[in-house]
Amino acid sequence: MANRVITIGRQCGSGGHTIGKLLAQRLGLPFYDKKLVEMVAAKTKLSPEFIRSHGEYFHGGSIGHIIGYGTRFNSGVLKTGSALTDQLHQAQCEIILEAAEKGPCVVVGRCADYVLAGKVPTLDVFIHSEMPYKIDRSVEEHSLERERAASILTRRDKARAHHYRFYTDQKWGDAKNYDLCLDSGTLGVEGCVAIIAGAYERMRQGT
Amino acid sequence: MANRVITIGRQCGSGGHTIGKLLAQRLGLPFYDKKLVEMVAAKTKLSPEFIRSHGEYFHGGSIGHIIGYGTRFNSGVLKTGSALTDQLHQAQCEIILEAAEKGPCVVVGRCADYVLAGKVPTLDVFIHSEMPYKIDRSVEEHSLERERAASILTRRDKARAHHYRFYTDQKWGDAKNYDLCLDSGTLGVEGCVAIIAGAYERMRQGT
Repeated sequence: MANRVITIGRQCGSGGHTIGKLLAQRLGLPFYDKKLVEMVAAKTKLSPEFIRSHGEYFHGGSIGHIIGYGTRFNSGVLKTGSALTDQLHQAQCEIILEAAEKGPCVVVGRCADYVLAGKVPTLDVFIHSEMPYKIDRSVEEHSLERERAASILTRRDKARAHHYRFYTDQKWGDAKNYDLCLDSGTLGVEGCVAIIAGAYERMRQGT
Repeated sequence: MANRVITIGRQCGSGGHTIGKLLAQRLGLPFYDKKLVEMVAAKTKLSPEFIRSHGEYFHGGSIGHIIGYGTRFNSGVLKTGSALTDQLHQAQCEIILEAAEKGPCVVVGRCADYVLAGKVPTLDVFIHSEMPYKIDRSVEEHSLERERAASILTRRDKARAHHYRFYTDQKWGDAKNYDLCLDSGTLGVEGCVAIIAGAYERMRQGT
């Protein structure tokens, strides 16, 4: 089971990105998060700004989402044609699959758990935490204004949940879709890294 | 943090009971699952059969649930009076709280995460797995007929989910209500025990 990929879904502000990065360092694996934006930009010629704002977030009025509704992209076939958001999602899926087929790695967000399901063995993780913890992290690490942090984080998570639902037909953050769901606020960032690394090693050893 | 209680919610057939028992043995903690039935029976004079069938399962037509709808028992005050299911739930809450106040322990099911919230420090765990794994376990360990297993397990989980929703106003199995959610089918029973024990030790040491 040398080719297992760790996918990490995460609430905004929960530290999922940091956990993925530390985990990749600890296990010596390639790490795909913001790097995916560059790879998708190179493949599609879409701007990094558009990729960042639409690659994981549902925008209510997007014609791409409206005309694509009900289609699935896991098959590797683009079904609805030209809408930019569909092109973006399709390119993301292909790049994630190519990366995963090269060898074990850590992929953050972008429906990677669903994209790889049935194609590559995965360890699917979801990171969440209570709002006060997420606010503290966002203020300290991303310089969010404390007064606006809760509403920004809530809005972003709503858009991520919609995006995930749209492309996977599954509920974002429902325990049954993941191998491991962890509260980074109570378990700590280092605690989460230790738990995921331990689970990964046990799966690799087949125990 | 010597008094932390591990609460384990679990899907039927996922091995949550076994995981709780092994965990309690490993950590040298008291284990409350079926034992709670005896304790509730002694306190309420209700029959063990009634306690087993109503202590965690919502029964659609129960007058107790109907007249109790919208009330909460976490405060330790019985608000709706005489219905047997309310008495049962109230007694369970009191016994769980008494047990938790004595010292660290492992409690399986019975909304213990919600009952203890804000009263005793907890490590809240939810165990789930895919249906084929649950069917195999139920056939091997509980002699369920293979052909009927899926429908029995689904019905029981539905009744547990309703019961949990009714008494807690929270969604059973939603990752955000737990510190740790684990897929026992992919992580293994021993793997789950190791992960929970590790998280518990880290919390105890405050790291």
